[in-house]
Amino acid sequence: MKTVSENRAFGGVQGVYTHASIACACDMTFGLFLPAQAEDGPVPLLWFLSGLTCTHENAMVKAGAQRWAAEAGIALVFPDTSPRGEGVANDPDFALGQGAGFYVNATRKPWAPHFRMWDYVTDELPRLLFNAFPLAEEVQGITGHSMGGHGALTIAMSFPGRFRSASAFAPICHPTSSDWGRPQFSAYLGTDESSWAAHDATLLMRRRGFDGPLLVDQGTSDQFLDKLRPEALAEAMASARQGGTFRMQKGYDHSYFFVSTFMEDHVSFHAQAFLG
Amino acid sequence: MKTVSENRAFGGVQGVYTHASIACACDMTFGLFLPAQAEDGPVPLLWFLSGLTCTHENAMVKAGAQRWAAEAGIALVFPDTSPRGEGVANDPDFALGQGAGFYVNATRKPWAPHFRMWDYVTDELPRLLFNAFPLAEEVQGITGHSMGGHGALTIAMSFPGRFRSASAFAPICHPTSSDWGRPQFSAYLGTDESSWAAHDATLLMRRRGFDGPLLVDQGTSDQFLDKLRPEALAEAMASARQGGTFRMQKGYDHSYFFVSTFMEDHVSFHAQAFLG
Repeated sequence: MKTVSENRAFGGVQGVYTHASIACACDMTFGLFLPAQAEDGPVPLLWFLSGLTCTHENAMVKAGAQRWAAEAGIALVFPDTSPRGEGVANDPDFALGQGAGFYVNATRKPWAPHFRMWDYVTDELPRLLFNAFPLAEEVQGITGHSMGGHGALTIAMSFPGRFRSASAFAPICHPTSSDWGRPQFSAYLGTDESSWAAHDATLLMRRRGFDGPLLVDQGTSDQFLDKLRPEALAEAMASARQGGTFRMQKGYDHSYFFVSTFMEDHVSFHAQAFLG
Repeated sequence: MKTVSENRAFGGVQGVYTHASIACACDMTFGLFLPAQAEDGPVPLLWFLSGLTCTHENAMVKAGAQRWAAEAGIALVFPDTSPRGEGVANDPDFALGQGAGFYVNATRKPWAPHFRMWDYVTDELPRLLFNAFPLAEEVQGITGHSMGGHGALTIAMSFPGRFRSASAFAPICHPTSSDWGRPQFSAYLGTDESSWAAHDATLLMRRRGFDGPLLVDQGTSDQFLDKLRPEALAEAMASARQGGTFRMQKGYDHSYFFVSTFMEDHVSFHAQAFLG
């Protein structure tokens, strides 16, 4: 693992690191914020998974999460959204290929050799983080924005007991019935739709739900509402009697201005769950 | 004036607007955050002047100021740092030309036709803002980062009575004796150094000071300390018996991680002054 940069921020350190990833068969970069409290021992870890076109950097510099994480003594990790680099497949469509890993393990050409973001985020990166940094593996939460909200919700529901709490900002809620989902799952996983169900938050909610508190925020003026399909997840949460809160935020769109506005609430929500 | 974008943020609106500037003889772009309180009448205005290489956008998306401005009911304006576009002179050095206006009126070729950022920020843009938006002209503060801290301090001291309060993040403190100052003032203003003094915060502090509270933050691990020369301004403030606070922040560098860390303090500082 190599240190790309470390900047003091809110009394802690905002670092950026690269490492050779086995899962993705390329170098991967991530951001990690460690609060001052990490000097005294392991701290809780909140995952932030980012959306289409993002790298590890966007949320790290625009979401304003460090302020609240520092106050609560929580570390933040910002993984990249896909493998990258020469020799890694790509597509002219911003919603496929580099910057658009969709947090799945691709099984189809040309994606299969590198696009294994599910394994990367759920297995390889956690092992690296808990080995290298003062992080409390037993106190984790997960959140994300848009495609990253999809990742956060599907991962949270797939690993019962791992995350104390889960939340999402304008997540892709029902990818198996959306233009942000169907084309990508076809490309990455093939056209047998039975393999898609494990990566659809609405379907997972209907089938098993999440074993902790859940918070979802969605702007009513989001320009991608038809692709995100919040109504499907809201309905599924209520039908499944999932404990949680689904908030439609009047006038907010899909941007980081929306994310940063409600970041304080999300970090507080996870911090509260971490106390339990 | 044309609206480029408007995003709901922290209960208010983060807008971006362009207009034909007479001072700079080109189109200019600025960001303006209006808090929810602006719906009920004019609100105080805090200026944020940005540093080298920045546009109107950097601080708007990375400094995290809107959160605190929304809470205090304060508007924020983020001007660009120079004229831009085809036909506008430029230089390969990032510290000269586009992105590096240094908040002066250039009098020398090839800069004089467009590089009139002093007039733009102190005269043209304020008139436009107070005409077009619900802003209280009698309640203004000014701050900025690096080259923008230089702009904020020199402008604050040059217009007694206009700003209730002034602050700066890692400002260029003494440009007439710095590599961030001497080459640019030579290019923009010519080699007669007497014309430079009006644009040097340390010299202005010695001569007249600021007629309100002043707050300066500077990181001790800033990679540009030799160019910023904080010691010159700190000495001048103390010698001039200027009311104010100069803080050296242990371990912080020149980045927006530093700026965002102390943004809450700066907005609170100005909000306090606005009550007076």
